[in-house]
Amino acid sequence: MNYRIGIVGSGAIGSYYGGKLAAAGQEVHFLMRGDLAEIRRRGLHLMGAGEDLRIPQINCYNSTKDIGPCDLVLIAVKTIANSVLPELLPPLLHERTLLLTLQNGLGNEELLADHFGAERVLGGLCFICLTRTSRTTIERADVGHISIGEFVGPPLPRTREIAGVFQQSGLNCNVVENLALERWRKLVWNVPFNSLSILAGGIDTESILRDDQLLDSTLAVMKEVIHAANLCGHALEDSAADEQIKRTQTMGPYKPSTLLDFQGGRPLEIEAIWGEPLRRARAVGAATPRLQTLYSVLRSVDRVRQEAAGTGPSLKPVV
Amino acid sequence: MNYRIGIVGSGAIGSYYGGKLAAAGQEVHFLMRGDLAEIRRRGLHLMGAGEDLRIPQINCYNSTKDIGPCDLVLIAVKTIANSVLPELLPPLLHERTLLLTLQNGLGNEELLADHFGAERVLGGLCFICLTRTSRTTIERADVGHISIGEFVGPPLPRTREIAGVFQQSGLNCNVVENLALERWRKLVWNVPFNSLSILAGGIDTESILRDDQLLDSTLAVMKEVIHAANLCGHALEDSAADEQIKRTQTMGPYKPSTLLDFQGGRPLEIEAIWGEPLRRARAVGAATPRLQTLYSVLRSVDRVRQEAAGTGPSLKPVV
Repeated sequence: MNYRIGIVGSGAIGSYYGGKLAAAGQEVHFLMRGDLAEIRRRGLHLMGAGEDLRIPQINCYNSTKDIGPCDLVLIAVKTIANSVLPELLPPLLHERTLLLTLQNGLGNEELLADHFGAERVLGGLCFICLTRTSRTTIERADVGHISIGEFVGPPLPRTREIAGVFQQSGLNCNVVENLALERWRKLVWNVPFNSLSILAGGIDTESILRDDQLLDSTLAVMKEVIHAANLCGHALEDSAADEQIKRTQTMGPYKPSTLLDFQGGRPLEIEAIWGEPLRRARAVGAATPRLQTLYSVLRSVDRVRQEAAGTGPSLKPVV
Repeated sequence: MNYRIGIVGSGAIGSYYGGKLAAAGQEVHFLMRGDLAEIRRRGLHLMGAGEDLRIPQINCYNSTKDIGPCDLVLIAVKTIANSVLPELLPPLLHERTLLLTLQNGLGNEELLADHFGAERVLGGLCFICLTRTSRTTIERADVGHISIGEFVGPPLPRTREIAGVFQQSGLNCNVVENLALERWRKLVWNVPFNSLSILAGGIDTESILRDDQLLDSTLAVMKEVIHAANLCGHALEDSAADEQIKRTQTMGPYKPSTLLDFQGGRPLEIEAIWGEPLRRARAVGAATPRLQTLYSVLRSVDRVRQEAAGTGPSLKPVV
């Protein structure tokens, strides 16, 4: 299958997946910020975990109008910039364009569905550790994988077709039956680790696991997320907490993406990872005292930092 | 009444209360650290909130052996240094010496009782904002008051006598019927504000009250503390939370002592304010998920900072 693919948000995630698809011969068009000239000149370099891939020719643009209609659009902007999407995406759409959000947390598919119709929305969960080490270089620390699913209902032929395109590009990709359930399952990990790593003093997952009290907190936060998921109608099993702990024990000293954002002085994805899950938990009457505490504190940390930086609480636009 | 009074821990609290007692004619002996020579030469200067008091002659020593037996010993070291007290205090004791701890949190009276006998232990709750602005100057931001009570049982004649000595020295001092209950009541304030002010980005109480989510967290933490106090047998009324919020609204942009310690790079009083209340809550089966989260995170923050400063997790000894 050949798709005309648009990549919106060319940070590490967008550049990596877009780069792999382009290298495999798909027609890929990147929306870029300031790095446009540099990437046009030098291409992209994907490296790490046994890979060393140079893609000399990258189609990049600073406006979605210049890209025009695509068959598939990958959304990889930070969720804090979601409010720009309704204005940004329309030039990329034809009648059957599919929108696949690779973003963190909850609420991203809903935003796309509200503005562009639920029937064209898919979501992907990225389990990979990527770092942009120069304007044209993305380093991966692990092989990683991506899970994709439909926003509405079980997988369709198109879901497996897109997964096939990812697989043919050398990416580990599987299709999930129930995307919402898998989003909550990922939150079981992100809600505790992404917050505690920042709040407990800027520490990695290994340091969290090594501290009895922090491990207690982690497990208890995980149980709150599982409880909320179940009350929201997603049959997430209780054992998901222990499974995530076991998986984390194999990961070494891992820094969650929000900790990297924090240490890099970037805004944090507060609403997608903590705010929206909390609102959904509250709407169904799930008790989530720890989630609320973490949300309140992180939200303040993010605001205080942005005020100190003089940028105010506003969004960093993508383009 | 004239007492021979020893002051152990000559930070802001010890220097201020000791200084006031000395200025009123009590025989006061201070155990001091490095500032000994300076204070011998220049005395103490207490100022702020309508006061400007110079005490030219201060009796100070770098060993409790040089002080010798006292009638009353005020303990004002940071609770993180409590482990040195069993070795430090004996030279100050005669058969009827009273020990009055002015320290924060829970567990201080118990430590003294375990080592020196419960019958000689009293506790004082200091409601005052003091800052040491130079080696010989203590500034107060408010008039403040101190509440004292017996560790075991209701007030005795000696309790009122000591309160009288404080009052005659120009200090607001009242006697409390139930010291343990009042310690928990003070924790209703300290547990949320002293932690959230640090974790939410280094903000004052006014900023916490202004943030809806942080105010929710504050109230919910207060309710956990009240719940734990009641299960521990202290009949703390539910309205204590709202009362503390109302009182805080009148305080202006106040920085809790633990935030000042944090910003000053000093170790935090984690165990007295969060650890010991949590252990007591758990012992009686009180659900305190927010307290546990705050404790786990702050304990890690404190350790990470001390490791970064190269001091290790050990105590700063007082002498």
